[in-house]
Amino acid sequence: MNTARFVSFEGGEGAGKSTQIQRLRQLLETHGRTVLVTREPGGSDGAEEIRDLLVKGEPGRWDAVTELLLLYAARRDHVEKVIKPALQKGQWVLCDRFADSTMAYQGFGHGLGQAMVQSVHDLVLGSFTPDLTYYLDIAPEDGLQRAHARQDDENRFESMTLDFHNKLRAGFQAISAENPNRFVTIDASQDLETVWTAIHQDAGKRWGLR
Amino acid sequence: MNTARFVSFEGGEGAGKSTQIQRLRQLLETHGRTVLVTREPGGSDGAEEIRDLLVKGEPGRWDAVTELLLLYAARRDHVEKVIKPALQKGQWVLCDRFADSTMAYQGFGHGLGQAMVQSVHDLVLGSFTPDLTYYLDIAPEDGLQRAHARQDDENRFESMTLDFHNKLRAGFQAISAENPNRFVTIDASQDLETVWTAIHQDAGKRWGLR
Repeated sequence: MNTARFVSFEGGEGAGKSTQIQRLRQLLETHGRTVLVTREPGGSDGAEEIRDLLVKGEPGRWDAVTELLLLYAARRDHVEKVIKPALQKGQWVLCDRFADSTMAYQGFGHGLGQAMVQSVHDLVLGSFTPDLTYYLDIAPEDGLQRAHARQDDENRFESMTLDFHNKLRAGFQAISAENPNRFVTIDASQDLETVWTAIHQDAGKRWGLR
Repeated sequence: MNTARFVSFEGGEGAGKSTQIQRLRQLLETHGRTVLVTREPGGSDGAEEIRDLLVKGEPGRWDAVTELLLLYAARRDHVEKVIKPALQKGQWVLCDRFADSTMAYQGFGHGLGQAMVQSVHDLVLGSFTPDLTYYLDIAPEDGLQRAHARQDDENRFESMTLDFHNKLRAGFQAISAENPNRFVTIDASQDLETVWTAIHQDAGKRWGLR
């Protein structure tokens, strides 16, 4: 029996999440799985509208608590309208960022603290969480250099200071340490093929994919 | 010394809140107070953008929890950017709907329950609450008849069933009973002048306005 899984990818800017998600999708499809690739913030019609409020406009237009609420409003819509229905149909869900990003950015980066973010999470999603999280870990200096090579209008997070990005990384590492059964940390400073080999080997063993 | 107050107006559709707010504003200004009139959802630039997500589009586009989060995201922005700064400058704030509306609509009307709404409130605003709330109570049949005389594109709540509006009214009455020191209930089935006389008399005694 092929039980569908919910797999999230986390990491700072330029860690290579999108590329690795596409590789894992191909691997899963080769093995006959139906795969839904999605992202946060966004991923459903309503959540994409909320995303626009979050990623466009002046940095600092929302305070950290408002941002937290908008992120969880988007997440609730995404989970209820897209992720849970897909899993119920037996589709694998690969998600570019999920709740751990909010914990890292708002809880650690913006200093709201873990308790505040966790309280909102518990109220909104209860115990719903990814089955597995690949955390692509990279030094902010290296990740930002890669991210700056891209051009888009969603540059709010990339424009923040190196100090902020170091707080994020420390946050992700702390979350990883607290969730050893769910988190798989991959050294994303390596070239893309080496990173993929690591994910491929883990997924192969874990889910019987070669 | 004139201490500024935060006064909210609550009630179902067609209860006459806007009219009474303008009357109270005039009275306060006649007595030399500076007054800010605002509304929810909305009242700040960011909150008005969130309001657009809430009041336009299909009824049922958001589930009750998502709606609760969007309402509190808007409220947080409104309180931090508009209401608290106005009070700190010594301005009176008159607000058309505030958190009691969310408790009535989402907590009672949509059945999320009081505990869920109160938990979000406490996380987002702590103990911040209006100094006084005028609740304009009217039977839904009468209020909706008045509201339907208006024409606008924000008709989501007005289009809900009479049963729903009766739940709202029961909700407001329950909140009123739980907050006897903050709530003043006015019979809004009376004509506008009679309603105003009741508010005028209360405000006059309470704040020394004739």
